[in-house]
Amino acid sequence: MTSDTQLDPTIESRVRASFAKQSMMRTLGAEIMTLGEGRCSIRSSIPPGARQQQGFGHAGLTFSIGDSAAGYAALTCMGLDSEVVTSEIKINLLAPATGDYLLAEGRVIRPGRRLITVQSEVWAVTGDTRRQVAVLLGTMVPVPLTPPE
Amino acid sequence: MTSDTQLDPTIESRVRASFAKQSMMRTLGAEIMTLGEGRCSIRSSIPPGARQQQGFGHAGLTFSIGDSAAGYAALTCMGLDSEVVTSEIKINLLAPATGDYLLAEGRVIRPGRRLITVQSEVWAVTGDTRRQVAVLLGTMVPVPLTPPE
Amino acid sequence: MTSDTQLDPTIESRVRASFAKQSMMRTLGAEIMTLGEGRCSIRSSIPPGARQQQGFGHAGLTFSIGDSAAGYAALTCMGLDSEVVTSEIKINLLAPATGDYLLAEGRVIRPGRRLITVQSEVWAVTGDTRRQVAVLLGTMVPVPLTPPE
Amino acid sequence: MTSDTQLDPTIESRVRASFAKQSMMRTLGAEIMTLGEGRCSIRSSIPPGARQQQGFGHAGLTFSIGDSAAGYAALTCMGLDSEVVTSEIKINLLAPATGDYLLAEGRVIRPGRRLITVQSEVWAVTGDTRRQVAVLLGTMVPVPLTPPE
Repeated sequence: MTSDTQLDPTIESRVRASFAKQSMMRTLGAEIMTLGEGRCSIRSSIPPGARQQQGFGHAGLTFSIGDSAAGYAALTCMGLDSEVVTSEIKINLLAPATGDYLLAEGRVIRPGRRLITVQSEVWAVTGDTRRQVAVLLGTMVPVPLTPPE
Repeated sequence: MTSDTQLDPTIESRVRASFAKQSMMRTLGAEIMTLGEGRCSIRSSIPPGARQQQGFGHAGLTFSIGDSAAGYAALTCMGLDSEVVTSEIKINLLAPATGDYLLAEGRVIRPGRRLITVQSEVWAVTGDTRRQVAVLLGTMVPVPLTPPE
Repeated sequence: MTSDTQLDPTIESRVRASFAKQSMMRTLGAEIMTLGEGRCSIRSSIPPGARQQQGFGHAGLTFSIGDSAAGYAALTCMGLDSEVVTSEIKINLLAPATGDYLLAEGRVIRPGRRLITVQSEVWAVTGDTRRQVAVLLGTMVPVPLTPPE
Repeated sequence: MTSDTQLDPTIESRVRASFAKQSMMRTLGAEIMTLGEGRCSIRSSIPPGARQQQGFGHAGLTFSIGDSAAGYAALTCMGLDSEVVTSEIKINLLAPATGDYLLAEGRVIRPGRRLITVQSEVWAVTGDTRRQVAVLLGTMVPVPLTPPE
């Protein structure tokens, strides 16, 4: 697990703390691989419990890591008093989700005060090769951070 | 669990057999509630392992049952020699996924030989009330059914 | 041209004034047919200058009236100090845009203070029959109304 | 007007002939700027007849040239016996469409036999600077070419 050195450590800690609270990511065998200003990549082991009827990764798995990679890319651009949530996102599925693991690379296309436009690519990695599985295009919106209880 | 009586039992069996092979649906506490010609509804218990950072259901959970409800709605319109897969689908998220359970209602907007346009609504149900959580609009494509091994 | 009697006349005037300023609507032979709370329908004559390579209405024509119908549906829900603009919208095209005219029916799915989720259906009307040409799903955002100069 | 030298002249002629038949492109002051394998760029003069209520280019203008750039990018990958039509496409609008002209850059993300996944960026160009106005992500489908009459 590597991190881009440019990213403010306070922001990196915040992103990792938020990710750690997403039980869905653990269920999907997902972890953050890289973080940078406006960028986040997440890999998933394609666990046995996240398959579709043909045995490939479910579209919901590909979506989930693509969406979270995009969301955390957006979160690196936000002040410390905000979270982000997905407003809308579209996924085009290009190939079956099968291989050693999936890798979702999210990035911010346009950071805004009210709306953050984001994109992700999701790849199936097998050995040294990778094949594009999906592309996502969406919008994140900031929400005030709930004060710690 | 109820089924629309209009649906051909062979098609209903096929849909339920496919659903049973989606391990992702079990992981997400999801089951088929109703099936009809061009229609499928799926509920999820919002299990503890499918949450986002604030404790609500993850966007990937809402997406997964909305996508599967739309996909199985499409499958009810297909000949017995085809499966369907998601080509692309967009989700607009309207409210937090929290309540007694989620209910996704998928339907076919336009059945086609090569492309099936589908829509789903996802609701959070609490007692007697329900609140819309999401709407999805997408495209399913038929793929030849893999012969049984 | 008919109007839903429920709609506040001040809001109706505002919608019609905004529409009248959209030169694109005149270019596309488009006019507002009905207006109601959270609803707007727009028809287009499919003018000769708005065709694609096969002679059907261009996807951009279908999109434009579907987008404007959705936008003005949203505007009926806004205070008088705001305009709306399209943040994002997706169109699924179902059939060629050909017939006597096109009719776009826009409606608000979820009105919000920051985001308004909208949907439109676009129909090709020939005599007494109509065929669905497209469905759109998108997000409108309010922007402060520019003060009159 | 320049062309990528790699593109087969027969394909380039076919793309330009199809474009010339799109009356919508003339109405929108649009012309092809560059063509390459899986790539097409189109500029528009933002004509007075394609504006929205604030005087900026209408979302339908931005959509139209983004959609056509993506479609013709796809057409460069097709055999000479097929046209392409838009199956679905989503646009995220990032900034007002205003400047000297708009430039849409379309490209193929994944060429397929049945579905071609495409993306476009649309820019507003003013002097030496450009600002991103929109991003589009969609699907083109081949259709048999109508025999010449």
